[in-house]
Amino acid sequence: MKLKHILTSQQFTVPVIMELFERTRFMKQIVARGGTSDYSNKILTNLFYKPSTRTRFSFESAIFRLGGKVLSTEQANEFSSEIKGEMLEDTIRITGNYCDAIVIRSHEEGGAKRAAEVSSVPIINAGDGSGGQHPTQALLDLYTIYDECKTLDGLSVAIIGALDQGRTARSLAYLLSKFDRIKIYFIAPDELQIKPDILAHLDEKGIAYELSNSTDKIINKVDVAYQTRIDNERIYDQKIDLNQYNIDAEVLKKMKQNSIIMHPLPRSVEISHEIDSDPRAAYFRQAENGLYVRMALLTMLFDK
Amino acid sequence: MKLKHILTSQQFTVPVIMELFERTRFMKQIVARGGTSDYSNKILTNLFYKPSTRTRFSFESAIFRLGGKVLSTEQANEFSSEIKGEMLEDTIRITGNYCDAIVIRSHEEGGAKRAAEVSSVPIINAGDGSGGQHPTQALLDLYTIYDECKTLDGLSVAIIGALDQGRTARSLAYLLSKFDRIKIYFIAPDELQIKPDILAHLDEKGIAYELSNSTDKIINKVDVAYQTRIDNERIYDQKIDLNQYNIDAEVLKKMKQNSIIMHPLPRSVEISHEIDSDPRAAYFRQAENGLYVRMALLTMLFDK
Amino acid sequence: MKLKHILTSQQFTVPVIMELFERTRFMKQIVARGGTSDYSNKILTNLFYKPSTRTRFSFESAIFRLGGKVLSTEQANEFSSEIKGEMLEDTIRITGNYCDAIVIRSHEEGGAKRAAEVSSVPIINAGDGSGGQHPTQALLDLYTIYDECKTLDGLSVAIIGALDQGRTARSLAYLLSKFDRIKIYFIAPDELQIKPDILAHLDEKGIAYELSNSTDKIINKVDVAYQTRIDNERIYDQKIDLNQYNIDAEVLKKMKQNSIIMHPLPRSVEISHEIDSDPRAAYFRQAENGLYVRMALLTMLFDK
Repeated sequence: MKLKHILTSQQFTVPVIMELFERTRFMKQIVARGGTSDYSNKILTNLFYKPSTRTRFSFESAIFRLGGKVLSTEQANEFSSEIKGEMLEDTIRITGNYCDAIVIRSHEEGGAKRAAEVSSVPIINAGDGSGGQHPTQALLDLYTIYDECKTLDGLSVAIIGALDQGRTARSLAYLLSKFDRIKIYFIAPDELQIKPDILAHLDEKGIAYELSNSTDKIINKVDVAYQTRIDNERIYDQKIDLNQYNIDAEVLKKMKQNSIIMHPLPRSVEISHEIDSDPRAAYFRQAENGLYVRMALLTMLFDK
Repeated sequence: MKLKHILTSQQFTVPVIMELFERTRFMKQIVARGGTSDYSNKILTNLFYKPSTRTRFSFESAIFRLGGKVLSTEQANEFSSEIKGEMLEDTIRITGNYCDAIVIRSHEEGGAKRAAEVSSVPIINAGDGSGGQHPTQALLDLYTIYDECKTLDGLSVAIIGALDQGRTARSLAYLLSKFDRIKIYFIAPDELQIKPDILAHLDEKGIAYELSNSTDKIINKVDVAYQTRIDNERIYDQKIDLNQYNIDAEVLKKMKQNSIIMHPLPRSVEISHEIDSDPRAAYFRQAENGLYVRMALLTMLFDK
Repeated sequence: MKLKHILTSQQFTVPVIMELFERTRFMKQIVARGGTSDYSNKILTNLFYKPSTRTRFSFESAIFRLGGKVLSTEQANEFSSEIKGEMLEDTIRITGNYCDAIVIRSHEEGGAKRAAEVSSVPIINAGDGSGGQHPTQALLDLYTIYDECKTLDGLSVAIIGALDQGRTARSLAYLLSKFDRIKIYFIAPDELQIKPDILAHLDEKGIAYELSNSTDKIINKVDVAYQTRIDNERIYDQKIDLNQYNIDAEVLKKMKQNSIIMHPLPRSVEISHEIDSDPRAAYFRQAENGLYVRMALLTMLFDK
């Protein structure tokens, strides 16, 4: 299946997701064999309006393992420095001459969509605005669950953290809703709970969910604990003990033997380093999957 | 024809320009076929003393499409940060060990020439000082006229903008003077007109020209309208209506059907977005040509 | 011989050094032939916590001449910008997914060692902290002496500069102590002389040395004058004439015909440009050797 652009998590149907996961597994084999040169004539541009070394490296490694090359800037606003307000559209039209696909991390919500409207090459949204989309992260999260649990149907998933502004949490909930017999636990202080629009979407899709302000009572039930950051400046002056949302050796003891712990990284105190060597700690494998998923997505953009 | 360095527009004779254009056309075919690996052992260094993502990307894409690799810095002054005043000459001698050609964007007029004097590898001047040279831009401008109009002889060319400090305007006038039966219209507010040295050069070469402070009376006569920026801070407090130099749908109506509009980009208000889809709007094709011209120039430096 | 990591000068035994030098000579031939594609599936990451364009270019060119690719950041602290204090260990674990070896320039002494403890790929220390190690520089210095003098045994070496904090001076003395009948002259103002720990090490190894505060009386005896920077802010208010430590045409006259002058570069006034064309001025050849030594080291990390 050929993709034209990668703009939102929502654009991915179950069949496309399944093809992506098939290709992702194949990419893991490719990397183990030292990569391929099949895409050696492809140039990928990273057009980042704010730095994100982690995401940049992941995309650059992906195109390198496919044999291709990379143009990168983490200061794309420099494009318009000479002239106040070069339009994003002009930048995209010009950059499209130099490459075969553009990864854009925009500071404006909807930036990637605007780029796609004028671009002569595929656009990949790598984050647009704080409330926006970052679909490749959402897809690697979903792939990791699939790869670790060998299914997406029938899983119990806890999503923990400052969920009201959590882009990855929101996208994951959205993607999970495409699968069957899912149960989602949203675990956050009441002030930081997931926004009603996501719950309305889950209701519409008939997905079971539960809200809780405590990890404690839930964690023993789940197949997946998707941890995100919670050390939230907005509530520091309140009296919530954020430590109760952390995962450490004590919390781990309560978890199922075949469950997994995920985190989009970077982590702060919310996952204790003492559990890193437990086989349930899946977050470094999750980061590694980012490479394979991005390689697979690139092939779906490049292949005829 | 083998080039040693690319330092000035003036160094290009008509036969060299014609070979360059021949190669440029061939490079366009190469890119359409996905590039070549003929220069896969070549490393190009971008040694930029001030950022210019647009120019950097253009050179990086050019060497990539030829199969080669790239070393880049947009903070070349960091080379001398440890030690106050490492000489440019030392930086060039050291960098020459690491690559096969150096693109230099210097902050000092004459920087590229100084670099060439000590360099063990070819030097390409990508702008030195505000009044200096940027020959690859001038050559891609000239190529675009040639490619669009199918000739350089007998053309009427309007050059519009703040021409007194316009590096691209000056270089283009200089290069056009090498061809026959050219007529150049310099259109600018009197305060910003082209400097007398260029006019003296045109007189010497017997090239017809006219100065004007109005686009209106000229635009219907020209084959090429080369627009540059005019929103010039130096005259904001004066009473000149700079809008009369802009090109919009109204101005376009007066232009010949087979004329073209060019701009070195980035543009501000001086070209209205409403005319982008008109076939006469050649500025994005011009930017694209930058890739092919730079590829062709690199082959003329690398080939024996 | 396969290397696991490159962390300190001390880890290199004489047999490993000799294999390295053998490979380095071979790499020089490889580069003269335009490089190799034998390592085209290798990705090297430059993880620099502070910029060093010179060192970055040297490593990037090395992996390019071997056929490989590069991920680079000179702002690796950006990795932990979102979250205050992402541990170096997490950054290394994640980055290891994207590449085959990591060059780290850390701001913390011991940073490279900590990285090596958790890394899934080889770590190369490119400088950790001001008093720390930079073993690839030390090895290219040693190689240059070997390549120029055709031996390391029986040499007289003057090491000149602000030696108390001179990382390269200290490492070179350390490496020279592995060879026979070496005589080292440490030439520095008394206030900036080499620290006693190095002298204790030389005593233990039975290496002859002499301390002096004057270049003048020593320079005629040496095979190698290893010059470093001396324009030391710490003593500017004192009455020492630092010029007497510089090497210029007058000093050169006193030196042996087959001696050499080295400098890790960048230089300030301590080596006069007037001697650059003298065949004894070896510092640009030394910089060139940096490429070959780093290529050779990479092959020793990558080869089975």
